[in-house]
Amino acid sequence: MPTQQIQYDSIKPIIWKDDNLDLLDQRILPAEHTYITLTDVESVALAITDMVVRGAPAIGITAAYGIVIAARKRFADNPQSWKEDIEADLDCLAQSRPTAVNLFWAIDMMREVIKGLNVADPIATLLSIAKQVHEDDIAANVKIGALGAELINDKCAVLTHCNAGALATGGYGTALGVIRSAFSKDKISMVYADETRPWLQGARLTAWEMVQDDIPVSLLVEGAAAHMIKISQKTDNPIKWIIVGSDRIASNGDVANKIGTYALAVLARYHGIKFMVAAPTTTIDMNIPDGDAIPIEERAASEVLNFAQNKVAATGAQARNPAFDVTPAALVDAIVTEKGVVLQPNADKIKALMIN
Amino acid sequence: MPTQQIQYDSIKPIIWKDDNLDLLDQRILPAEHTYITLTDVESVALAITDMVVRGAPAIGITAAYGIVIAARKRFADNPQSWKEDIEADLDCLAQSRPTAVNLFWAIDMMREVIKGLNVADPIATLLSIAKQVHEDDIAANVKIGALGAELINDKCAVLTHCNAGALATGGYGTALGVIRSAFSKDKISMVYADETRPWLQGARLTAWEMVQDDIPVSLLVEGAAAHMIKISQKTDNPIKWIIVGSDRIASNGDVANKIGTYALAVLARYHGIKFMVAAPTTTIDMNIPDGDAIPIEERAASEVLNFAQNKVAATGAQARNPAFDVTPAALVDAIVTEKGVVLQPNADKIKALMIN
Repeated sequence: MPTQQIQYDSIKPIIWKDDNLDLLDQRILPAEHTYITLTDVESVALAITDMVVRGAPAIGITAAYGIVIAARKRFADNPQSWKEDIEADLDCLAQSRPTAVNLFWAIDMMREVIKGLNVADPIATLLSIAKQVHEDDIAANVKIGALGAELINDKCAVLTHCNAGALATGGYGTALGVIRSAFSKDKISMVYADETRPWLQGARLTAWEMVQDDIPVSLLVEGAAAHMIKISQKTDNPIKWIIVGSDRIASNGDVANKIGTYALAVLARYHGIKFMVAAPTTTIDMNIPDGDAIPIEERAASEVLNFAQNKVAATGAQARNPAFDVTPAALVDAIVTEKGVVLQPNADKIKALMIN
Repeated sequence: MPTQQIQYDSIKPIIWKDDNLDLLDQRILPAEHTYITLTDVESVALAITDMVVRGAPAIGITAAYGIVIAARKRFADNPQSWKEDIEADLDCLAQSRPTAVNLFWAIDMMREVIKGLNVADPIATLLSIAKQVHEDDIAANVKIGALGAELINDKCAVLTHCNAGALATGGYGTALGVIRSAFSKDKISMVYADETRPWLQGARLTAWEMVQDDIPVSLLVEGAAAHMIKISQKTDNPIKWIIVGSDRIASNGDVANKIGTYALAVLARYHGIKFMVAAPTTTIDMNIPDGDAIPIEERAASEVLNFAQNKVAATGAQARNPAFDVTPAALVDAIVTEKGVVLQPNADKIKALMIN
């Protein structure tokens, strides 16, 4: 078995540096590798909305650091009322994107911490907690990677969608963490990556991450996934797993993820291959009964009507641009978290996992 | 019932003018509406390969006119040997694109005509036949449109893929012909159009055609089709039909069409909606037993690795770029031709249609 050196730790989407937050601008990767320094909470919220940073776990970590920045200003402005004043900032962050639950998890967790804070230097405490959130996420991903890789029995090709990689998390990645781990164990012959319109996270981000780690990657337009799944079954490198991340998992195991994921789950079932969701437990929303209750962000029609900033559709054409879709639990073979694997998820199994 | 004025006849992808072939350059639509004049057969073949003209019926018509141009030169060069000399030109055209069978149908038909020609002015005869091919295609599409529209019972939304419109044919269109006919009978509330990567025929061409005819059209990235099918079922405008064209139909009813079609057929079956293929009988290849025998064109990886002529994927990433896929007959609810409708197609039904 070859030992592969995995370079993921060179990919740092989020860096706390010189008392401010540096975000790798993922909108211009891989052409440019540029960090944006954020010094106020409004800029942090805007960076999430504008997708400088994206990916549910990465958004959660970014929000945690954003709250440190907000607290610093509120505490300096008014050490008496800062705990009340900061609520406006938490609201601002909460409105940055609606679907990823890790964002709300981070905000709620930091709010609870702030309520209980009674120290001379609250900022140092909050910063240490944000850093812990960041480190815990990386550790969770490494665990997810190991657990997910164990599910892959025979060396095969896999297919992934969007970018659930180091860039979408604190580091290492969820779906790409599983792929990194499985590749290092010689279980993966090829990673097919949907380019993932309209933002091309697959083409720009996943392909780049795979190339960094010398993992063979082949891009597809979304329309080609079904064909490649079908024809690959007759080759020595059949696609046996579809592996994706998630932005929110309902308490019954329904999975919200990047638009296009649901179609892949239907295709997996039709072709008799497996569908794996890799996500930390911070992605599981026990307050949501099922996928119908997950708010689905619809972004601007211009993201579809235009192409590379140029108008492509005729004037008068409309567009729908849902950013996420919901895959019912019945189509999911495994949800892989840092706390363990849930096969054929349902409400009871998810509950057992979370209590564990 | 409102009477809708359908403007399709203002859309002319192919024009014989001043003894030469004018092709509307579909690569730059809708931004520019420019014709390219072709005066030699090599240029005609290149225009097909480079997708100045695309769509199986349009390619067939273009080839027929291209053969007129080739014959004119060969006959002028050597009136004795021109029937043998032109074989090189027929080969050149045959190699321009491999999947659309209408191309080979047109070449074979014109070859047979040439063999039997024994007139003073063979060019005038060949031109009249090419023009007849063109006119017959439009007439077939109008018939297909009427027959397809009859299959739609209740007013609903429909979803189409790529462009099987006036631009893909002699005029009026196959799938879009059905949509034009059904819309004029007030049976369609909304046309959802996949943008259709990597060439964006849906965004550039289908949206433009629909806007020309004041038919409401809403673009989707391919990944959003499954989500829209699912959520629309709970609305007053459910997507009830997926309507597509075809580049080649095998004798058992398997359907080759633009990459991404097969996934839509799987999604239609999963969601309990219907899947219609609209195509003239020139698209049916009785020499092909099933879809496995249809050659699938794989185009350059650069069409996926680049985006709007700019490199988007990291150096080292590969891409697969199949231009077509095959939908098994078992997933097709209706094949609609100018000779009639074949429900739940199979080899016997296709044979009966073709003998008819």
